[in-house]
Amino acid sequence: MPELRKDPVIGRWVIISAERGQRPTSFETIARSDSATKCPFCPGHENQTPPEVLAFRDDDTAPDSPGWRLRVAPNKYPALKVEGELIREAKGIYDRISGIGAHEVIIETPEHDLDMADMTVGQIRDVLWAYRERMIDLEKDTRFKYILLFKNHGAAAGASLEHSHSQLIATPIVPKRVAEELAGSKAYYGFRERCVFCDVIRQELDEKERIVRDMDSFLSFAPFASRFPFETWIIPKSHQSSFLEMTEIQYTHLAACMKDALTRLKIALNDPPYNFMIHTRPTSKIAHEYFHWHIEIIPKMTRLAGFEWGTGFFINPTPPEEAAKFLAGVDIKNRVNPV
Amino acid sequence: MPELRKDPVIGRWVIISAERGQRPTSFETIARSDSATKCPFCPGHENQTPPEVLAFRDDDTAPDSPGWRLRVAPNKYPALKVEGELIREAKGIYDRISGIGAHEVIIETPEHDLDMADMTVGQIRDVLWAYRERMIDLEKDTRFKYILLFKNHGAAAGASLEHSHSQLIATPIVPKRVAEELAGSKAYYGFRERCVFCDVIRQELDEKERIVRDMDSFLSFAPFASRFPFETWIIPKSHQSSFLEMTEIQYTHLAACMKDALTRLKIALNDPPYNFMIHTRPTSKIAHEYFHWHIEIIPKMTRLAGFEWGTGFFINPTPPEEAAKFLAGVDIKNRVNPV
Repeated sequence: MPELRKDPVIGRWVIISAERGQRPTSFETIARSDSATKCPFCPGHENQTPPEVLAFRDDDTAPDSPGWRLRVAPNKYPALKVEGELIREAKGIYDRISGIGAHEVIIETPEHDLDMADMTVGQIRDVLWAYRERMIDLEKDTRFKYILLFKNHGAAAGASLEHSHSQLIATPIVPKRVAEELAGSKAYYGFRERCVFCDVIRQELDEKERIVRDMDSFLSFAPFASRFPFETWIIPKSHQSSFLEMTEIQYTHLAACMKDALTRLKIALNDPPYNFMIHTRPTSKIAHEYFHWHIEIIPKMTRLAGFEWGTGFFINPTPPEEAAKFLAGVDIKNRVNPV
Repeated sequence: MPELRKDPVIGRWVIISAERGQRPTSFETIARSDSATKCPFCPGHENQTPPEVLAFRDDDTAPDSPGWRLRVAPNKYPALKVEGELIREAKGIYDRISGIGAHEVIIETPEHDLDMADMTVGQIRDVLWAYRERMIDLEKDTRFKYILLFKNHGAAAGASLEHSHSQLIATPIVPKRVAEELAGSKAYYGFRERCVFCDVIRQELDEKERIVRDMDSFLSFAPFASRFPFETWIIPKSHQSSFLEMTEIQYTHLAACMKDALTRLKIALNDPPYNFMIHTRPTSKIAHEYFHWHIEIIPKMTRLAGFEWGTGFFINPTPPEEAAKFLAGVDIKNRVNPV
């Protein structure tokens, strides 16, 4: 059974999930099933995942058979397990929680080689809509304090399968990074009675130095204190604390903005590995006034990746103003890299 | 000029250091000068680094010439610059500080191919003594709030040169991870009037489940909430808040404990890339009662490295109890891997 353990000094929770683990000697030899014939996410291989919990599929097709355009199934090697009781206990000075949670895979397309950047806006909207449906469903389970939606693209960003997919993890605690954003934005609101993210958006729209694209109801921009070269955030221009507060048309707006941002990164950086993560409010629905949901996209420039572990903080060699200018200048229509 | 920028929501400082940067297209083509003939850290190439600030060398040799067994020089591509005034300013809602600091390289050995794990205890003690001398010297500069000492081993851990070296960065702010440890250990002390790290040591010595080695005045162990497989901490068993509080013999004890831990990791994981970082108190010398200095060693198992960026928190597939048992079982004398 996996468990969550709390660092006794700084309070960070870590998932210890031995069942996903390997013997030390096997770390370097994990097989990658990257060819379509072996891929567990390709049509015809539905029996290689646990039974689907959601699918967008042709009317006359059965669950766990071909005919789908998007499919969600529990992760075959889950970091947390959905069955069991939520137990919180101490062991001496240490704290732990049973590893209860959900871990699902969103298979975004039946096509083995189709990147999210190359999907249509409609296909990306389907993916976002699947995120929404799973989030609404899992929020009903009171054991879960947070629902994380994220995507790892490329082996260097942690993707173990090439076939385009996202992941969902529902956790019995709020992840530290989100908890820090909640605390920071709450403190700012207490002081100024304004949302700090709304203030960021106002200043970015005013200065125009770090904006990648201003599209419909969304903005893509390189944040002022970017940790990584070409880090890009996507944020709704009007205040919303939750991914679930979007209107229907906004899912299309967001899909278009994500396609735009991912295409620019793909062209500018030659299809880099990347992660993105949705930062939304916790399932408790607190934080409406002061928290503002957004998506953080982090391209992983491997040559530069190790430094932050060594130093304990981030050294970014690319000023966000330069990154934004470069990304904004990419000719996505003709796919010509202007440099 | 580099600058430090503060995230307006969570307060994390990031170094934006454009002069170290490259054009996007050059990210993948950074040259590695790994052969001894080209290596700027090898004897005879002293003119390829800025003039040395410290060296342990034969009596009759001149600075910046061969004859040294250890050499410290400013980093040729510093993340922070030592010249200039410390300016703190706001730009709208954003905060920044001029990028004042020191960035030095500790060239640990004249031998191009000698890893720290394979150095003698005396050689490692020399390295630790050099850390000490540079720390004492730089603490005199009141612009610096913290002095970070760390090592990146292997390209995947961020090392840009193969020749064994460590780095020192003196910063005008306390890095977030250290600030969190200071705040957490202060809160614990306020509540229990004991050092949380001392309590950790007591529980570890009592349970004996996560200890790698108990050696003289130091302990190496796998922390209860390890973020990474085979994460190993080295900590003085008696309370000390600073690396500089060690007695002379303790530098030898620490060198022996580090050699032991690094050798075990090298054998068990087949010379993995790793980072280590010394967490010591800030230059202000606060925190004596509640903070306890230590070294965190993080082997970088590349296949697993991306996940935490995607999820926003850490999923560790190797329970620290298993990691400690495995590392403790490595036969370092005969260098036989017991599994």
